[in-house]
Amino acid sequence: MLAIEYNGNLVLRKDYPAPRPAEGEALIAVRKAGICRTDLEITRGYMNFRGVLGHEFVGQVVEGPDEWKGKRVVGEVNCPCGQCPLCSMGLGKHCRSRTVLGIQGRGGVFAEFTALPAANLHEVPPGVGDDEAVFAEPLAAAMQIIRQVRFMPTDGAVVLGDGRLGLLAAMALRNVLRDILLVGKHANKLAIAKACGIKTILAKDFLPRRSARFVIDATGTAEGFSLALRTVMPTGTIVLKSTYASPGWLNLAPVVIDEITVVGSRCGPFADAINALKDRDVNVLPLISAHYDLSDGVTAMVAAADPSNIKVIIDVARQP
Amino acid sequence: MLAIEYNGNLVLRKDYPAPRPAEGEALIAVRKAGICRTDLEITRGYMNFRGVLGHEFVGQVVEGPDEWKGKRVVGEVNCPCGQCPLCSMGLGKHCRSRTVLGIQGRGGVFAEFTALPAANLHEVPPGVGDDEAVFAEPLAAAMQIIRQVRFMPTDGAVVLGDGRLGLLAAMALRNVLRDILLVGKHANKLAIAKACGIKTILAKDFLPRRSARFVIDATGTAEGFSLALRTVMPTGTIVLKSTYASPGWLNLAPVVIDEITVVGSRCGPFADAINALKDRDVNVLPLISAHYDLSDGVTAMVAAADPSNIKVIIDVARQP
Repeated sequence: MLAIEYNGNLVLRKDYPAPRPAEGEALIAVRKAGICRTDLEITRGYMNFRGVLGHEFVGQVVEGPDEWKGKRVVGEVNCPCGQCPLCSMGLGKHCRSRTVLGIQGRGGVFAEFTALPAANLHEVPPGVGDDEAVFAEPLAAAMQIIRQVRFMPTDGAVVLGDGRLGLLAAMALRNVLRDILLVGKHANKLAIAKACGIKTILAKDFLPRRSARFVIDATGTAEGFSLALRTVMPTGTIVLKSTYASPGWLNLAPVVIDEITVVGSRCGPFADAINALKDRDVNVLPLISAHYDLSDGVTAMVAAADPSNIKVIIDVARQP
Repeated sequence: MLAIEYNGNLVLRKDYPAPRPAEGEALIAVRKAGICRTDLEITRGYMNFRGVLGHEFVGQVVEGPDEWKGKRVVGEVNCPCGQCPLCSMGLGKHCRSRTVLGIQGRGGVFAEFTALPAANLHEVPPGVGDDEAVFAEPLAAAMQIIRQVRFMPTDGAVVLGDGRLGLLAAMALRNVLRDILLVGKHANKLAIAKACGIKTILAKDFLPRRSARFVIDATGTAEGFSLALRTVMPTGTIVLKSTYASPGWLNLAPVVIDEITVVGSRCGPFADAINALKDRDVNVLPLISAHYDLSDGVTAMVAAADPSNIKVIIDVARQP
């Protein structure tokens, strides 16, 4: 099959072997895939992954359990062992023996076919288009914040970072909190948030005042965390939201003195994300910067690394 | 009056002017004072404080509001302005204009007299001796953990650090959690915890397994925080509990990947601490390593810096 492989180099493969689904797994014909920061980090050495990249997708089940055949699906990326203490505590997404779609021990979705346990699948409702459904994974990650933090509807939040995740977080929180301020470096990205009724400010104009009850750090940098510490009020909460953060020279004394709570946040609830897409709570389509065919997948990855782009979509199978 | 002053050097003063209580404040004859790590840090430059050191005390009100005169008291250290937004939100202990007893803008308790707003005072019940009452402030700081974190009685916790605060935290948590493991470097300190029914282990024998639901980091070092990250289970909580933590080279990626919550924790509820002392929930007396007269206060500070000592008490006024 056609696939984008990372084997130390990023290459287009025309003869990559299609995955063979194990017992309980489904074989899925990928329709669209999204490129995420994690995919880019992997090509810089993150996770030491080798294989087909990609974990954000919408596709159609072509083989597997009868009840799933033919269905249009999105899928959760963590495939737990189901046996270990963490799995038995319901913490399968943290299972130490897990494989992770396109990230760890399991080929991804920048390919014509991919395989996932049926338990990971979620059917896409008819009203949600492919270009929206492909956002289920990152939108779920953004909505995980709402599951983890006990917000009051009258609370506000400052979101730091106008990348893909920062924008989705701002959009998701917009529906449950009184007001959101998105701080970013790109006028074109802030404009999208502004069109959704979100207050925005350029990072160079932002004066942190240690006054925000909630700060979402979606910058993915140690400097972003320092800014978060200067933005949050005493006894406030910082949600740390980025798949990969570089080590940095950090002083945690303000966390203690100001009694800050820092909440690490990763993958999230697909059901919440699919509902938000279905109910049009979040309009993800303006986040799409470009479409590429799978055969141009390497070029698509280069485009996704350009900070002026937001979400780059790979069209794997063009629908009739 | 007799006082231990830090003026760039640590000196015994025989002629230090007694504090003059402002409106609403009480003048307190100090009976006993405790030396804390923060006092030692101040003599290394922390907070840039100059004046009479010390903030842990028990004393007797000699001047001030009628209802307090003659009472034996302990006192909260933060003196908020009472006017600012943080104060009006009930966050007076985080007030930016606050003075802090013996730490910031207000002389401390290593002296014959000290002054505090009457609102900061708590009467000591008859059954609680002076040597116990002097622990009210650090025990309150330890019990703040119980106020901040939503424990279940069946939970356990690992406490890292067998210093004063680590021991008090282990003792306080012992009463509300199923089991506590205290990890420390000093056999003599661990023995005290063991006598209270707390499991203990020497740091050199401790193998972190990313398996503890709650970890209390009372090491006060960046290395301690790294150890906490290797000790806590995915989705678990680290309570960061030290007045001063040095900056260090930290990788926050595990916080995100394992969805760890980090809770900064500082001063705590005096009422809880006084009740625990009164009800004999916590026996603090074994923590006292040495007593010194106020006139030997400089020597007492040297003794407190010796890691083999736990709590050093300054006897300011010997009771008849």
